[in-house]
Amino acid sequence: MHSLRFTSETASNGVFERDFVVGEVPGVLWSPVSGRDHAPLVLMGHGGGLHKKTPALMARAHETVISHGFTVAAIDAPGHGDRPRTAEDEHIRAGFKEAMAAGDTERVGSLSVRYGVSLAERAVPEWQAILDALQALPEIGADAPIGYGGGITLGTGIGIPLTAVESRISAAIFGGGFVVYDALLEAARRITVPVQFLLPWDDEHVDRQSALGLFDAFASKEKTLHANPGDHRTIRWSGLDEHFLARHLSTSPA
Amino acid sequence: MHSLRFTSETASNGVFERDFVVGEVPGVLWSPVSGRDHAPLVLMGHGGGLHKKTPALMARAHETVISHGFTVAAIDAPGHGDRPRTAEDEHIRAGFKEAMAAGDTERVGSLSVRYGVSLAERAVPEWQAILDALQALPEIGADAPIGYGGGITLGTGIGIPLTAVESRISAAIFGGGFVVYDALLEAARRITVPVQFLLPWDDEHVDRQSALGLFDAFASKEKTLHANPGDHRTIRWSGLDEHFLARHLSTSPA
Repeated sequence: MHSLRFTSETASNGVFERDFVVGEVPGVLWSPVSGRDHAPLVLMGHGGGLHKKTPALMARAHETVISHGFTVAAIDAPGHGDRPRTAEDEHIRAGFKEAMAAGDTERVGSLSVRYGVSLAERAVPEWQAILDALQALPEIGADAPIGYGGGITLGTGIGIPLTAVESRISAAIFGGGFVVYDALLEAARRITVPVQFLLPWDDEHVDRQSALGLFDAFASKEKTLHANPGDHRTIRWSGLDEHFLARHLSTSPA
Repeated sequence: MHSLRFTSETASNGVFERDFVVGEVPGVLWSPVSGRDHAPLVLMGHGGGLHKKTPALMARAHETVISHGFTVAAIDAPGHGDRPRTAEDEHIRAGFKEAMAAGDTERVGSLSVRYGVSLAERAVPEWQAILDALQALPEIGADAPIGYGGGITLGTGIGIPLTAVESRISAAIFGGGFVVYDALLEAARRITVPVQFLLPWDDEHVDRQSALGLFDAFASKEKTLHANPGDHRTIRWSGLDEHFLARHLSTSPA
């Protein structure tokens, strides 16, 4: 097991930001400057082509730290951010660009599924190792309730298979905006923890019915579908339940 | 034009409740015991077979009064609560019961559409007259922002055609749980104000796709679909944006 090594730290606006590595995976941990030990821990995924410090993710992480006093962790997905791409990654990405330029929707879809499956296969055991390493920190420990804080597209493509196999995660935020495939539906059917599912209602490249089918597949007794107009790039969420994770992860009432 | 005549008044838990009649339509007005004039006014519809003081509606009304200081009005729909049924109402209801007992889903659907259309035709001008009478009260006046506070099923079957023609309504909560028909889709396409749409995800008697089609039809730039597991009788909403009307009706920030 790799332990977690902090590589840098800064603080701003009451949020302590520490970069770390676990093995070859770079990550970042945000926590309150004056925090309590064993606060709930939220794992946040980033979207496809993005990275662990993408502005939207940073904003959600800061909000989670400041509003709830939680700890937030993010890592670069395989082949994203500071991480090298494999020859296969480069091959798929080149094919993807070609297919996009040619307007070949079918090939775009099949390549995005192939890439998504490949990334999730690598990312799930990585997240599990990161979680082991985070729990080895005295300030987190084995007692901190753990949630998955989503990110639509790739963050969900990785988060669903992770939550399906990882019993330490007790609530999760997922979202649409990508091509849903059978293995993902199967993973969703094994998820029973509370789920909040965010759907951009007008995603021109993604079939809305398949996203609704994904929401339908979660075995969770408590699940919420939240949809607003827009696609996964332009979406402006409104009326969102910002307290979903706080309600399910707080050991005392939120 | 009929004016509004108060027939009784009581107060409990800081909420002032006044029964009224406008012509032959009985209604009820809830407001803060110590309220301000021209506070936002929320019109609340009740579900099919229910009435203006159904417990769920009362609970929503009290919550709206207490949390936001708003005024809430509800009336009995035609043939509901204290109001007589027409011969045609009785005829359709008898047929509906027969069809339910016989498990004739198609006839249940067609009768529920026929009844819904007939009720909405009568209820829309009634609500408009009630609104005129309410605005004639000095404490409400022409300045109070007005919202439609929903109710799934019949409350939405009446609320959608009302909001489509009534420019005084500036935000609305609707919901699924009933058979959607073409005239309702057409009315939804004329609605441009912010809409919150509540969908029971597992309604065994109602086609989910038709409810999603109804959400899709609203022309509103700002609209939110919120779905939870359950049917329209058993639904327990979770993670709902309770501040939707407050955000859109408050003259000062909510």
